[in-house]
Amino acid sequence: MNNLLVAQSGGPTSVINATMAGIVDYAKKTNKIDKIYGGLHGIKGIIGGQLIEIHKIFSDNKNLNLLTQTPSSALGSSRYKLKDDKAIYEKIIDVLKRFGIGYFIYIGGNDSMDTVLKLSNYCRENSIDDIKIMGVPKTIDNDLYITDHTPGFGSAAKYIATTTAELFCDLRVYDMPLVGVLEIMGRNAGWLTASAALSGVNGGDSPNLIYIPEVEFDEDKFIEDVKKELAKTHYVLIALSEGLKDSDGVYLCEKTSKKGIDAFGHKMLSGAGKYVEQLIKSSDLGCRTRGIELSLMQRAAGHIVSLTDIEESKLLGAKAVERALEGYTAEMSIIIRESSNPYKVTISSVDVAKVANFEKTVPLEWLNEEKNNVNEKMIEYIYPLIQGEYNTLYENGIPKHIKLF
Amino acid sequence: MNNLLVAQSGGPTSVINATMAGIVDYAKKTNKIDKIYGGLHGIKGIIGGQLIEIHKIFSDNKNLNLLTQTPSSALGSSRYKLKDDKAIYEKIIDVLKRFGIGYFIYIGGNDSMDTVLKLSNYCRENSIDDIKIMGVPKTIDNDLYITDHTPGFGSAAKYIATTTAELFCDLRVYDMPLVGVLEIMGRNAGWLTASAALSGVNGGDSPNLIYIPEVEFDEDKFIEDVKKELAKTHYVLIALSEGLKDSDGVYLCEKTSKKGIDAFGHKMLSGAGKYVEQLIKSSDLGCRTRGIELSLMQRAAGHIVSLTDIEESKLLGAKAVERALEGYTAEMSIIIRESSNPYKVTISSVDVAKVANFEKTVPLEWLNEEKNNVNEKMIEYIYPLIQGEYNTLYENGIPKHIKLF
Repeated sequence: MNNLLVAQSGGPTSVINATMAGIVDYAKKTNKIDKIYGGLHGIKGIIGGQLIEIHKIFSDNKNLNLLTQTPSSALGSSRYKLKDDKAIYEKIIDVLKRFGIGYFIYIGGNDSMDTVLKLSNYCRENSIDDIKIMGVPKTIDNDLYITDHTPGFGSAAKYIATTTAELFCDLRVYDMPLVGVLEIMGRNAGWLTASAALSGVNGGDSPNLIYIPEVEFDEDKFIEDVKKELAKTHYVLIALSEGLKDSDGVYLCEKTSKKGIDAFGHKMLSGAGKYVEQLIKSSDLGCRTRGIELSLMQRAAGHIVSLTDIEESKLLGAKAVERALEGYTAEMSIIIRESSNPYKVTISSVDVAKVANFEKTVPLEWLNEEKNNVNEKMIEYIYPLIQGEYNTLYENGIPKHIKLF
Repeated sequence: MNNLLVAQSGGPTSVINATMAGIVDYAKKTNKIDKIYGGLHGIKGIIGGQLIEIHKIFSDNKNLNLLTQTPSSALGSSRYKLKDDKAIYEKIIDVLKRFGIGYFIYIGGNDSMDTVLKLSNYCRENSIDDIKIMGVPKTIDNDLYITDHTPGFGSAAKYIATTTAELFCDLRVYDMPLVGVLEIMGRNAGWLTASAALSGVNGGDSPNLIYIPEVEFDEDKFIEDVKKELAKTHYVLIALSEGLKDSDGVYLCEKTSKKGIDAFGHKMLSGAGKYVEQLIKSSDLGCRTRGIELSLMQRAAGHIVSLTDIEESKLLGAKAVERALEGYTAEMSIIIRESSNPYKVTISSVDVAKVANFEKTVPLEWLNEEKNNVNEKMIEYIYPLIQGEYNTLYENGIPKHIKLF
């Protein structure tokens, strides 16, 4: 039982493969692991026995570097939620034993940490102590507890800050009132939307208004806010989260459309930006408006990752292997921030039960008084996470990626 | 009358400022020009006398390099179309004379070349021969005649090819049928949409289906096309132009929405992707679908420009100054392709009358037989244009930009 299994779950990020690279690299260098397997499509694929041997693919560093710069889950993903069905757990343990897996490292977000917790609880209850199960965080949403931030967030924030700066260059060119409405991911947490404010780090423009799900959205107040900004300048950029809700707790997007529910019972969202765009159009603001969605690009833009994020992602992966080899189980690697300026972190590990199923939202004291923008505390928090550029290898004009299945 | 005026017009690109840098750099180095002015907001701003002296700002190369890497029109833009109103022409000439402008270089697309033509015709008819008026092409749409391609297209194509490759990494992670619908700019010409095919240059995925405005869009055939692709793979990416029309010549976006008309009488479009997404949802294809719009990012993503495009943009700008100083007027700088492999071009100049008001669309023989994708001729044409990476200067985690007004 000296083999290691790594798998990925949930919505991809542009550095989730850097974490996998950190895991594979650490596992390669220790003499305690025989074979390294990749589980395809997360826990769902593992149940189906979809394990591929990846040791040889990464025998040299060339492919490991390609893996590091390939966005999204190279092993595929799933949104399968473990039910309280004993047969499923038995099936998983069967597969792990069949492949001689002593160490299972699961890279994912909140729901994936729930899987790590449940599976390790099952092992504990059934006295299976030769399989160590560890979680490594990832999510652009940055909504996990205890860890200072999550891998994936810094790169998404860098993409968003850069894109916001570029959109400002575009929106300001015409000499007429224009309001850009930038919809950013974030169902319940406003971290990503807040990162648009970093477009101003070099003294340039930053969003005039920022609306996040932690603050209820008031339509009348909103129109007043925009009016005030238009009185100051001819171009206004509003950054807002897809998960904005009104005072009755109704998602703005639900006001125009009825969407489905995913396997986790989350409502599937889209369209808060469109709704707000429509609000502006039907107002008396007398401006043009342009809606922009950062869509999948904000989590897939591997060509503009944060070097800080890449390095931390690798370290968190390595930490999970290190702890598993030391005999620990049911933990998640975390980042502890020692200081912001100079930026200094420690990579550590905690009981996954402390993390799973909690959502970390934006502290309201990191917003301005009117709660329609961020303040310097938020900037100080995000700033170090977007620092550094990764030296991406291009071939034939585009970044080179690796394909594992 | 030895001063030079540069101005920008139409929709911005991520290298329109590289052209301006090429103009300023050439003008600085010759001893034939006294002052360099920038006209704000294109011809509209010039009519209003909005000229700023930019000679000193660019006295060192640092700011010239920042200008090169700043996306969108640093001097602002306009969509003002010159009418046949003598008073307007007199006003423009008045302003040019007042500022001692002997050379006016206008960077823009089709409509801007129309301005260059009309203004130089006016000068000719009124024996004003001490003002040379030159055009330099720019447009991500690549729809200008005579020049092999337009500056701005290569960088947009590089962004689109890269983003398409990244989106493929994202779309394929889940083990269930999914169709991505990628809407790309292009009212009447499919060049940009075609460039999504370059995502496959390293052997990776490229769009399963590509629909451009040059081919009428048949809904039934479309559903059949998608069905065939889904039979081969669980993830399908469709790239399509915003300007798709049905067999009656009706824009797909008009089928769902009624939009305005811009100053040039063009219909303002959006929503072909949304329409097609809806088509898939209401079909019996049994797949999920996800619409993605590249929106303003495809013309503003200055952080991922093509080095080839940057270099050519500068050379075209310099050529216009060179020709103007030699006494020519009413010309537009062009790129002549000598060969694709190895890629070799000549920078030249032609009578702007040959270019203005014509639109260059995609030759149908560069598409596959079914006209739902491109063939190797298109790849060969676009390939050299996306080559090379520009060494962008980052500061505090994002690319540094310059602001001129």
